[in-house]
Amino acid sequence: MPISLSHTDRMALLDEQLARSLQALAGPSELMDRMARYSLGLISTQGEPTDEQTRQQVQGKRLRPQIAMLVAEAVGGSAAAAAPVAAAIELLHNFTLIHDDIQDRSPNRRHRPTVWRVWSDAQAINAGDALFAVSQLSLLDAAERVPADILQTLIGEFNRCTIDIVRGQVQDLNNEGRSNVTPEDYLEMIGGKTAAILRYSAWAGAMVGGVDRRTADRIGDLGMSIGMGFQIRDDMLGIWSPAEQTGKAAADDLRRRKQTLPVLILRAAANEEDAEWIETNYRSEELDETQVAELLSLLAKYNVEARTAEHVRAEHARSLAILEEVFGDSDQPAVTALRDLVTQLVDRSF
Amino acid sequence: MPISLSHTDRMALLDEQLARSLQALAGPSELMDRMARYSLGLISTQGEPTDEQTRQQVQGKRLRPQIAMLVAEAVGGSAAAAAPVAAAIELLHNFTLIHDDIQDRSPNRRHRPTVWRVWSDAQAINAGDALFAVSQLSLLDAAERVPADILQTLIGEFNRCTIDIVRGQVQDLNNEGRSNVTPEDYLEMIGGKTAAILRYSAWAGAMVGGVDRRTADRIGDLGMSIGMGFQIRDDMLGIWSPAEQTGKAAADDLRRRKQTLPVLILRAAANEEDAEWIETNYRSEELDETQVAELLSLLAKYNVEARTAEHVRAEHARSLAILEEVFGDSDQPAVTALRDLVTQLVDRSF
Repeated sequence: MPISLSHTDRMALLDEQLARSLQALAGPSELMDRMARYSLGLISTQGEPTDEQTRQQVQGKRLRPQIAMLVAEAVGGSAAAAAPVAAAIELLHNFTLIHDDIQDRSPNRRHRPTVWRVWSDAQAINAGDALFAVSQLSLLDAAERVPADILQTLIGEFNRCTIDIVRGQVQDLNNEGRSNVTPEDYLEMIGGKTAAILRYSAWAGAMVGGVDRRTADRIGDLGMSIGMGFQIRDDMLGIWSPAEQTGKAAADDLRRRKQTLPVLILRAAANEEDAEWIETNYRSEELDETQVAELLSLLAKYNVEARTAEHVRAEHARSLAILEEVFGDSDQPAVTALRDLVTQLVDRSF
Repeated sequence: MPISLSHTDRMALLDEQLARSLQALAGPSELMDRMARYSLGLISTQGEPTDEQTRQQVQGKRLRPQIAMLVAEAVGGSAAAAAPVAAAIELLHNFTLIHDDIQDRSPNRRHRPTVWRVWSDAQAINAGDALFAVSQLSLLDAAERVPADILQTLIGEFNRCTIDIVRGQVQDLNNEGRSNVTPEDYLEMIGGKTAAILRYSAWAGAMVGGVDRRTADRIGDLGMSIGMGFQIRDDMLGIWSPAEQTGKAAADDLRRRKQTLPVLILRAAANEEDAEWIETNYRSEELDETQVAELLSLLAKYNVEARTAEHVRAEHARSLAILEEVFGDSDQPAVTALRDLVTQLVDRSF
């Protein structure tokens, strides 16, 4: 019977491994190290340690490393063996966030100024690059617990996953301002940009846990499904969620004329007249409140909220089906935790 | 007696491995792949294959992979076994160039528009990120020829080297516009930004070639020395080289008020009056021709060209000493090629 840790214990293992990996940034020019630790919520722009509340707010749910560690336990391995991989994933994720924020000109990330806004675009590029290198070092620390051939596979897929993420980001930037993006284009794009890293998290947790490659791939599908559902739920929250829960104004994604799934579903469903209105209005730099209201009523007219929710529900069902296929009705704590996590993500309002 | 390949054969092995590694970029969204291949000189912005002349011009001397392969042969291994590492180094180098060009706002690289200028800053960040991931995959291909523990060491040092490069770039950007940068600060900065990758090239070639860690580290010192000499020679060419050889106007680095070693030596040596003139004049966005002429005469007054050349000569001597220490007076082709390379770099005028 494998040992199952508490959430707190798992996160402590993750923090330990992150601290160990970040040591590679020590040395002359404190700035590189500072930017990296700031982005992870560990310190302020001035280098002061953050308080517990800030740290938790910046670190968020830590969904990706959590899934890697839970899966490792669920298949009979240990969260400790998965810690290097989990930390590598979290570092990879933070590297992509830093570069995304430059690309999207996002002024804030998790309620704090983005790295580029504090230290310039040029230095933020460096911060991301450095974190990516650190993530590879973290992965190597798995050598202590994982056979060499498995480790090589983990490293290879880690970098292939990164290529998928970058490809998704290339597509996302390319889609901006295009009016002919289809829901299918969009699903392909988020499959790389958001879901690939969740697939890797689940897959790598399974590999570290010692399952055969076929089972690991199936668990990778679970991660993929979690990732797709997660992103589409995010798209819904960007339009229909009240400000007090997300920290963003309701309909904020519309105001910033983002091409998220609801908008693409609307475009595909709209009659000629409505499509023309959208085509004309959904291109200015920022929509005014009248335009936002009109768009919200069009979304209601075509029942887009329910249609989008259908995608989330489908991914949820797929996730639960894979969990059942692999783990049956096991009541092992890590399996239960995975089931709960999958269900919470569907209904989350933040 | 190890087989020694011709330069052409070595470069063919490198090209083969690069082609193999770049396959990881194939898939939806051709743009990521295109930017990567463009940066390597393989295709035009439109995706057309380049002619041989353009390719050679863009690829330049390919110093770093060349050193890795020559060292592997010199220690008794084969260039073929070093090809994955050599390609990884070339990909890493290209990734850093793409990001450097964004950071430095460089409009051209090797006589062609830079990636950011063709496809935007945002997409150029992606191109660099993707190439960095591909470089890691290339490194993994060494698994076919290198024991697993050595491979892990190669991957670890590759990423530590990347951190050194990024640190150097952080310092370089930080030094811009500062008037109190010392020659020592500068040497530390280029030790990371330019020399670390040459150290890795030589060191990794030796490791792949099968020498013990201590010898490999000594050969790493050789690479470091080559890198330092290379950069300082570059600084000299940026001031005292005629346009027809470098493709840059003479004194171009002064015009762009770069903080290269000659300028820092001048600042450290200047009397109060001259120092004040420099302090006042070496800060505008771009120097005019009168200011450039005055600066050139100050450099002459303090004998800065000879003082800078002294650094290059010292690194050259150190390189030759290490070659002798490790290889004695061996007339093995790869050792001879390394000796020639070291000497050519000191005198190069382009």
